Amino acid sequence: MAKEHLKASENEAHRLSRRALLTGGAVGAGIGALLGGAGGVAGGYALAERDRANEPRFDPEAEPALTPSADREGFGGEALSCHGDHQAGIVTVPATHVRHIAYTLRPETDRAAIARMLRLLTGDIEALTAGVAPLADPEPELAERPARLTVTLGVGAELVDRVDPAKRPAWLAPLPAFTLDQLGNGFDGGDLLLIVQADDQLPVAHAARMLHRDLDRFAEVAWVQEGFRQARGAEAKGATMRNLMGQVDGTVNPAPDDADFDSLVWVDSAAGQPWLVGGSAFVLRRIRMELDTWDRVDRPGREQTIGRTLADGAALSNPHGGENAPADFDAKNALGLPIISSAAHIRRATSQDPSERIVRRAVNYDTGHEAGLLFGCYQRDPLRQFVPIQRRLDEADLLNEWVTHTGSAVFAVLPGFRSGETLGAALLA
Amino acid sequence: MAKEHLKASENEAHRLSRRALLTGGAVGAGIGALLGGAGGVAGGYALAERDRANEPRFDPEAEPALTPSADREGFGGEALSCHGDHQAGIVTVPATHVRHIAYTLRPETDRAAIARMLRLLTGDIEALTAGVAPLADPEPELAERPARLTVTLGVGAELVDRVDPAKRPAWLAPLPAFTLDQLGNGFDGGDLLLIVQADDQLPVAHAARMLHRDLDRFAEVAWVQEGFRQARGAEAKGATMRNLMGQVDGTVNPAPDDADFDSLVWVDSAAGQPWLVGGSAFVLRRIRMELDTWDRVDRPGREQTIGRTLADGAALSNPHGGENAPADFDAKNALGLPIISSAAHIRRATSQDPSERIVRRAVNYDTGHEAGLLFGCYQRDPLRQFVPIQRRLDEADLLNEWVTHTGSAVFAVLPGFRSGETLGAALLA
Ligand code: HEM
Ligand code: HEM
Repeated sequence: MAKEHLKASENEAHRLSRRALLTGGAVGAGIGALLGGAGGVAGGYALAERDRANEPRFDPEAEPALTPSADREGFGGEALSCHGDHQAGIVTVPATHVRHIAYTLRPETDRAAIARMLRLLTGDIEALTAGVAPLADPEPELAERPARLTVTLGVGAELVDRVDPAKRPAWLAPLPAFTLDQLGNGFDGGDLLLIVQADDQLPVAHAARMLHRDLDRFAEVAWVQEGFRQARGAEAKGATMRNLMGQVDGTVNPAPDDADFDSLVWVDSAAGQPWLVGGSAFVLRRIRMELDTWDRVDRPGREQTIGRTLADGAALSNPHGGENAPADFDAKNALGLPIISSAAHIRRATSQDPSERIVRRAVNYDTGHEAGLLFGCYQRDPLRQFVPIQRRLDEADLLNEWVTHTGSAVFAVLPGFRSGETLGAALLA
Repeated sequence: MAKEHLKASENEAHRLSRRALLTGGAVGAGIGALLGGAGGVAGGYALAERDRANEPRFDPEAEPALTPSADREGFGGEALSCHGDHQAGIVTVPATHVRHIAYTLRPETDRAAIARMLRLLTGDIEALTAGVAPLADPEPELAERPARLTVTLGVGAELVDRVDPAKRPAWLAPLPAFTLDQLGNGFDGGDLLLIVQADDQLPVAHAARMLHRDLDRFAEVAWVQEGFRQARGAEAKGATMRNLMGQVDGTVNPAPDDADFDSLVWVDSAAGQPWLVGGSAFVLRRIRMELDTWDRVDRPGREQTIGRTLADGAALSNPHGGENAPADFDAKNALGLPIISSAAHIRRATSQDPSERIVRRAVNYDTGHEAGLLFGCYQRDPLRQFVPIQRRLDEADLLNEWVTHTGSAVFAVLPGFRSGETLGAALLA
């Protein structure tokens, strides 16, 4: 792993970037002229470009923790550590805003370039998530209030192949086709993924932009998909998301304190590539909702489609039991018929095999022209977890009448990292 | 004005819509079969379509005020009245999320259809902003937490012409061209505008969808532009927005308690069309930011471009005076040169004529591919307020190097209305 790690406090970073600025040249005579005399005061416009790959890295250990102070009221000042066994943003309490950005590597981005790229990203992710402006961040004010910003990094098949095709897990490939898929709309695949999340859209936009500066020379944007759930503070704490069909969405989900959580989500040495131990697999499906026709279905019909009430997400087998009472799929009504339909979404989605589960982290999307769910999920192996569930849904799920999968992508989510380490170091070792 | 106003409490509305549902037909044999026996319990899938124009209207006076209760923690339950001399959303404390949706009228939407359309919209705006599901809203749960939802309605030249061309104010037309404009990207004009704002994206999405159901038969979507500012709760209360260039944006703005505010913003009987008295004119400019090149300008250069500091938005003439100290455009530096450049944005934007001012309500946009400002502003007459300011900016504004106007639209914002009245009634009288 690279050892170019240096200490650079926020002030030092500012000093460094100021120095870079003051030694730069004028942007152009036209602007200089317009500036009138004022330019003389400040030394004129100057370029702040440098070879960022060779710069000292932000050292989070050397930084004072962010403490909300009088002029930093509000949750904007809250920062989450990006360090640990696993990347942040996977089991983190879901954020309000989630932007998924996929990149395609440029043809010339080889193994060495990938290593440089990951070093750059690592340093800037450390800085941004700590609420500290990355080196030469031109808008440090936009970095100061991360609002629980996380950046989760995934790599696609092509990136792993450029490093070493032997390191690619079998599942890191396009998913098998499902009958009802309507892909090919520019939301499939990708060589690199950033999942940028925060409770405020401003730090999401700023972080995405700063990381794009890192990536620009190595890769170009393949697609961007941004989603949301209810605003932080709008709901009681811990309320489950509602999707745009009005359903409580996310109730039955493996939780980090479940005994089998680790085996469901994290790649381990027995099960996978050694470089990916502590990492995960992320599947993102863009699922369009046909809300116009959905609107025409009556409420009982809509509840039967899922198998849960719209009011609070209780299973129909126990409609007054609240959201968290388990569904009883054997329950029958007075006529002896199953209360939860044989094709209800939750019945089809429930796996008999407990190892065939996924951790869902979906968000709503709504472009104004199209709405739906950005269905993201984590697992150890999509071929053994997402795929069998989606096969059952694809085959028969009442919901299919009103949802269409229009985008699909799979990424290997890099293992976590510690201060002084680089994201993806084991892949490149 | 229409007098079909009836009382319909929330319960009644639910009862009404349930009745409609239970008398509907089955959606299709395929789904019925999949449902197995469960359909029998609920009466099967049924259609909830009706002629919504003939339905009783939601009566906000008959509704209990929304009070956040134990299970309604958080600001989601906060509702703003849509009634008053002026529409809500214009002087309302800015919301986090703002969606602008423009519609083009269908060819067959004549004066009578416009009247029906405005009645439908009025009732649903009253319901939605009160946090009450509109009649037959299929997802009442998504309506219950408006989070300060407002819907502000504007009409374009074509709509007024279809009612009566003599009623069209001179300014209700495309703006004169500016030299640096690069329009024609699908974000220009429009016959009808909804400005949907809330502190939570979910009620924005839901309200837009419900209002779209009203509009669908009368008009089709021309364009949608959604923007954001810092999340509610992330910042100290009352903090001015930061735009994506990092600037504090919105400092110098006429305030409702200014002596001349009314004369700047609201159409009065002397100045305009009688039907528009109490209304306003809204200009929306989509302004792309060239953040890549902006990033390369040093901090002093960026501050001179605007004439204010990036740290807290203080005028450069008094950089420690804080955001609200007035700029001194005559201040000179030690060399006798103006501290605020002759082409600084705030110098060019400041009007000598105090009646030549506008009320700015801009938000950030960021599609992931393009970022900038949705520059919305209110005034009595765009030709005498927005246009002269924009002419000066177009001519010489340091900012021009990094911003491009790529969309332009003008709407007449309807006057306010009271319970029992219909939006735009005076236009149709
Ligand atoms: C737009 C598409 C979808 C919608 C609207 C949707 C909605 C829902 C809802 C409302 C529930 C019940 C509450 C909960 O436990 O979260 C649910 C459960 C579930 N969904 Fe989906 N879902 C969609 C797509 C998918 C897909 C693509 C998968 C996986 C392939 C999936 C897997 C699951 C699972 C595993 C459960 C929990 C089932 C259980 O109770 O054991 N869903 N979904
Ligand atoms: C992306 C484009 C723009 C950006 C980034 C921008 C940014 C700013 C900033 C940072 C300020 C100083 C703080 C404040 O008072 O709000 C300002 C002031 C102002 N801007 Fe803009 N602006 C833009 C476009 C426009 C346009 C198109 C107009 C009108 C035609 C305009 C009119 C004004 C006015 C009237 C002021 C207050 C000037 C004063 O101090 O009297 N701006 N703008």
